[in-house]
Amino acid sequence: MSVRPSLASDNWAGAHPAVLSAIAAANAGPAAAYGDDEWTARLAVWIEREFGPGVASFLVFNGTAANVLSLLGLTRPFHAVICSDVAHLAVDECGAPERTCGVKLVPIRHRDGRLLPDQVVAAIAGRGVVHHSQPAVLSITQPTELGTVYSVADLLALSTVAHDHGLRVHMDGARLANAAASLGCTLREITRDVGVDVLSFGATKNGAIGAEAVLLFDDHGVADMPFLRKQTMQLASKGRFLAAQFLALADGNLWRANAGHANAMATRLAAGLRGLPGVTITRPVEANAVFAIFPGDLAAWLLQRADFYVWNEGSGEVRLMCSWATTEHEVDHFVALISQRQRG
Amino acid sequence: MSVRPSLASDNWAGAHPAVLSAIAAANAGPAAAYGDDEWTARLAVWIEREFGPGVASFLVFNGTAANVLSLLGLTRPFHAVICSDVAHLAVDECGAPERTCGVKLVPIRHRDGRLLPDQVVAAIAGRGVVHHSQPAVLSITQPTELGTVYSVADLLALSTVAHDHGLRVHMDGARLANAAASLGCTLREITRDVGVDVLSFGATKNGAIGAEAVLLFDDHGVADMPFLRKQTMQLASKGRFLAAQFLALADGNLWRANAGHANAMATRLAAGLRGLPGVTITRPVEANAVFAIFPGDLAAWLLQRADFYVWNEGSGEVRLMCSWATTEHEVDHFVALISQRQRG
Amino acid sequence: MSVRPSLASDNWAGAHPAVLSAIAAANAGPAAAYGDDEWTARLAVWIEREFGPGVASFLVFNGTAANVLSLLGLTRPFHAVICSDVAHLAVDECGAPERTCGVKLVPIRHRDGRLLPDQVVAAIAGRGVVHHSQPAVLSITQPTELGTVYSVADLLALSTVAHDHGLRVHMDGARLANAAASLGCTLREITRDVGVDVLSFGATKNGAIGAEAVLLFDDHGVADMPFLRKQTMQLASKGRFLAAQFLALADGNLWRANAGHANAMATRLAAGLRGLPGVTITRPVEANAVFAIFPGDLAAWLLQRADFYVWNEGSGEVRLMCSWATTEHEVDHFVALISQRQRG
Amino acid sequence: MSVRPSLASDNWAGAHPAVLSAIAAANAGPAAAYGDDEWTARLAVWIEREFGPGVASFLVFNGTAANVLSLLGLTRPFHAVICSDVAHLAVDECGAPERTCGVKLVPIRHRDGRLLPDQVVAAIAGRGVVHHSQPAVLSITQPTELGTVYSVADLLALSTVAHDHGLRVHMDGARLANAAASLGCTLREITRDVGVDVLSFGATKNGAIGAEAVLLFDDHGVADMPFLRKQTMQLASKGRFLAAQFLALADGNLWRANAGHANAMATRLAAGLRGLPGVTITRPVEANAVFAIFPGDLAAWLLQRADFYVWNEGSGEVRLMCSWATTEHEVDHFVALISQRQRG
Repeated sequence: MSVRPSLASDNWAGAHPAVLSAIAAANAGPAAAYGDDEWTARLAVWIEREFGPGVASFLVFNGTAANVLSLLGLTRPFHAVICSDVAHLAVDECGAPERTCGVKLVPIRHRDGRLLPDQVVAAIAGRGVVHHSQPAVLSITQPTELGTVYSVADLLALSTVAHDHGLRVHMDGARLANAAASLGCTLREITRDVGVDVLSFGATKNGAIGAEAVLLFDDHGVADMPFLRKQTMQLASKGRFLAAQFLALADGNLWRANAGHANAMATRLAAGLRGLPGVTITRPVEANAVFAIFPGDLAAWLLQRADFYVWNEGSGEVRLMCSWATTEHEVDHFVALISQRQRG
Repeated sequence: MSVRPSLASDNWAGAHPAVLSAIAAANAGPAAAYGDDEWTARLAVWIEREFGPGVASFLVFNGTAANVLSLLGLTRPFHAVICSDVAHLAVDECGAPERTCGVKLVPIRHRDGRLLPDQVVAAIAGRGVVHHSQPAVLSITQPTELGTVYSVADLLALSTVAHDHGLRVHMDGARLANAAASLGCTLREITRDVGVDVLSFGATKNGAIGAEAVLLFDDHGVADMPFLRKQTMQLASKGRFLAAQFLALADGNLWRANAGHANAMATRLAAGLRGLPGVTITRPVEANAVFAIFPGDLAAWLLQRADFYVWNEGSGEVRLMCSWATTEHEVDHFVALISQRQRG
Repeated sequence: MSVRPSLASDNWAGAHPAVLSAIAAANAGPAAAYGDDEWTARLAVWIEREFGPGVASFLVFNGTAANVLSLLGLTRPFHAVICSDVAHLAVDECGAPERTCGVKLVPIRHRDGRLLPDQVVAAIAGRGVVHHSQPAVLSITQPTELGTVYSVADLLALSTVAHDHGLRVHMDGARLANAAASLGCTLREITRDVGVDVLSFGATKNGAIGAEAVLLFDDHGVADMPFLRKQTMQLASKGRFLAAQFLALADGNLWRANAGHANAMATRLAAGLRGLPGVTITRPVEANAVFAIFPGDLAAWLLQRADFYVWNEGSGEVRLMCSWATTEHEVDHFVALISQRQRG
Repeated sequence: MSVRPSLASDNWAGAHPAVLSAIAAANAGPAAAYGDDEWTARLAVWIEREFGPGVASFLVFNGTAANVLSLLGLTRPFHAVICSDVAHLAVDECGAPERTCGVKLVPIRHRDGRLLPDQVVAAIAGRGVVHHSQPAVLSITQPTELGTVYSVADLLALSTVAHDHGLRVHMDGARLANAAASLGCTLREITRDVGVDVLSFGATKNGAIGAEAVLLFDDHGVADMPFLRKQTMQLASKGRFLAAQFLALADGNLWRANAGHANAMATRLAAGLRGLPGVTITRPVEANAVFAIFPGDLAAWLLQRADFYVWNEGSGEVRLMCSWATTEHEVDHFVALISQRQRG
């Protein structure tokens, strides 16, 4: 009997057992609330080891919060934030950035999820003109919402034009581990070292039950952030349980193993699909997602036998997302389902 | 060797083992994200069993969020919310209600944490006058921030005057279980049955690692709430892990046992303190908190040997908070510390 | 000696003398503040005569406020507002709609400033999906920011698809008089009668010193609007002076004469420009604006001799805006300037 | 035949004729919009002459806007603003400060409208504690809402404690001219010279039809203010007409004459009332308001014959407000009304 392939999202996956163990281990007697605990302190040490000294880190509950708080620290309400037109913060957060920060989002037409430096420059408009929201931040998603990964050179080029034009750079790294695993880089090499100023650093999709962080790579806004986090309802009382999740993923670089596995499953899935007649892989497969178009009514047929999302109702493009928990069996079974149906 | 008594807050306590077990049990393969999972569905059933049919429940991450979302569903920004001047939402949420809802809070002078109906009536001002925020909600904390518990009659009287004046009634029930245990009531008898319209229902302080809920007892605002929760960054992706925590506390009424234990520890602590010369219990001990004033430099001396908060720097009043995890040994040791010092 | 042609904006024009006279006439002794005065009452009568019974009108200070308050009455923060990508509220209000209402704007690619019904339908996305801002309002500008005018049939088609999809319809009528004059319609025929629910009704560009109104054509949100206006800082204390401006423009249909004159000046200007080699009129001239591209360095040369705006730095398209105060002499002189230069 | 005495508010008065003349004079042909006009430039010169060099001034439409924009420039949403419990911004602006700035207001019990330095110090709480709104601004009203006037020494003492505790000082000067006239001081001597950082400077109640200004006395927030004003919908398009009103009041110090006259009328009114049996003047009469309690049903009887407000329904205290337009005849007639009734 076969498992139903779960390719809907990496947040449909459960938690890695090591995360649960870490939570249980942190459940040892009383601990100071609101982040004044030893787990949070140990995590800060690990973060500075990974990203270099002078990083202020703030744990929050989910990815939307990490993005919004990052922007809140970088903006005033009359600012504009440049991002791609598939950016999670632009299309999947129910207007949380606008409502919370007051800012205007300026979406740019993506290329397989990515932005190009020239597009960023072209989107910087209205500087100094009182009628226009003032461009202040470039937000980049790494890996992108379409499963592609910016190279180190890509990122450096983007942050350079952003900084040259007085913008600060935010990275939505809800799946940052997958990018690092894909590129064989450290976390630092694709964030701080390439000019990212503020990072949304995700653990949930990497195997946590729910934990994200905002990392500030310089002093800008550090003094305000504790209050911004509290006022936006993102300060956990039993903070040790957020920190413990990150520490579990840090331990022995479990984060990289989890991400690498998810990426490998996407690669395996893409390879399987490429052999099937009529199936088109629509985006470069560079992290843990495969985008594809299935011929005829295949997508509808598959949705009865597996979980995944139709990304674009118009074109029929679907998204197949792998996670730390995806198995080779699931992947192979999904490919086999198609193959069997095609053979009739 | 003695443990250091931990009386700072019930959110310094860890999670009840049953909660951790429930989280582990919920970690069984993939599950739909964002609350479309079987644990959330089962919790909704339990909630309707406890509170009666027709309850819409929305899980959130922390107590501030539960309060703010409750108010957000009940108000427009030109509204005013009447509450006590020690209400958590007025003094401990860093202005989150004002910022998120746009409303004005109207704090009333408390009596041992409680409000009286006449005070509520007196605070309703400026109705229909465009220059004034329009009174729309009465928010009550049960048990109060000072460890007292409204009786069923108290609550009914408050909600009656509120409704008679066109206000809706919110209850901050971050420690609701302690009130129910104290009164020997069901959860419903001190909420929905006495006129509460919207409830912040807490699990964190009752033994969860972090889970709260907003409960709407009628249709008002139900359609908007999913979007309000998402936009205020309180929608968990792996929602099953929030629901599982509540379910663990629901199972076999663990919530009542935990709360009853915490209350009993406070009673024991108060009894111990009452026998000590110069120690004054300052508030009725009706739930899991003891407020006291220690003579001379005793509080300072104790703070080196135990964790608790000075509630009022001016009067020297301290708060001693018990939890599901507080032990008789801790309580007795705390009393013994004082006793030994007083004997010299 | 020639006047410097003033074609920058209809808000560079002064006030019509009748407006000043009306203000002076309203300055007769004390009057109740905050709109409880006889001029405001008389204006309400005139508004109901023009637009039909059951209109609630709210005077505000400027056009941005009229737009934002209109949206505020129609939305909750998780809503989306569909508009054109040159809509004043999307590009010229420094993010005021986002900041004040919390909403997301969904800009659609305009066609000479106009939207088509099919575009509106295509932009309605994510209904009922909690991750997406919920489409709630269609905002139309009449005349458009590019000087074109929707026909009655155009408007009816737009409002019909909007209403069919559960959206409400807002019209930005900062220059509504110019549209009515252009079409030979009453104000009602191009607003309420074609399905507009809420109207930003402008007087400033029609000859006032500064006065706009929000008109609600049904009961929706009427009870809240006085408080929304006050809280967004748009309630004038000496309200009679706002009402008096509108009354002056109402008297003898001065509004239509002023708008008709401005339109006629634009027509005259376009006619003059059409005869000049190399000058391209880029948009249909249907109200009081002419959009054009000038050959070579002509625009730069003209900017030293006349006031107007370069609308698009890339294409060189310029906007030439006529007002109630524009003279035939100004228009002819502007054309003559070009003509003379071209003749060398 | 006698005029009905108008003592309801100084915003029930019309505009001074010189203001209307100035508006008419400013109506001379086209002028650049949004404050880039010569009247605004000339006003900036006058403001720097009055208040000293280095003042950034921003015209807005009403007093609520001046207060809110002042606070917006000084705060982030997690800040607290200390003010009196009768401060206009706390009780008469329908929650505009909370909604617009996100801040918490901390009202202090007034003494005849005034605050004392010790009260300010006592209200500064929770510094550095993430759960509490962070005190950032002291807002003072001069003259107070109860018609009293802070002395230069009072103001200096307040601003000194505020600055010593890291707060910035805002003054609500909606009636600043009345204070300057009362004290025989320059505007500068009771604002910038005594430590005020940001001033709401009112013209409306001094004889304008509607014009207020935000004055920043140092660089703090100057760069942001143009955008904050625009985004909060307070940027007038035909800005010359706001500036012209101020210039009319500046010319020949008409502002002082208007304010002095209003103050004199209040003094005359108080003198008349003091001679009447049973009438109690309840507050020191130091500017243009008289607060009083009338015996028996006198207040109700008078309200049928004159316009004024009952300030406190409980105590029956009424407010009698004089303006630049109040006549000796009105004042004497009001006193005579009482006198005649008392004689029966």
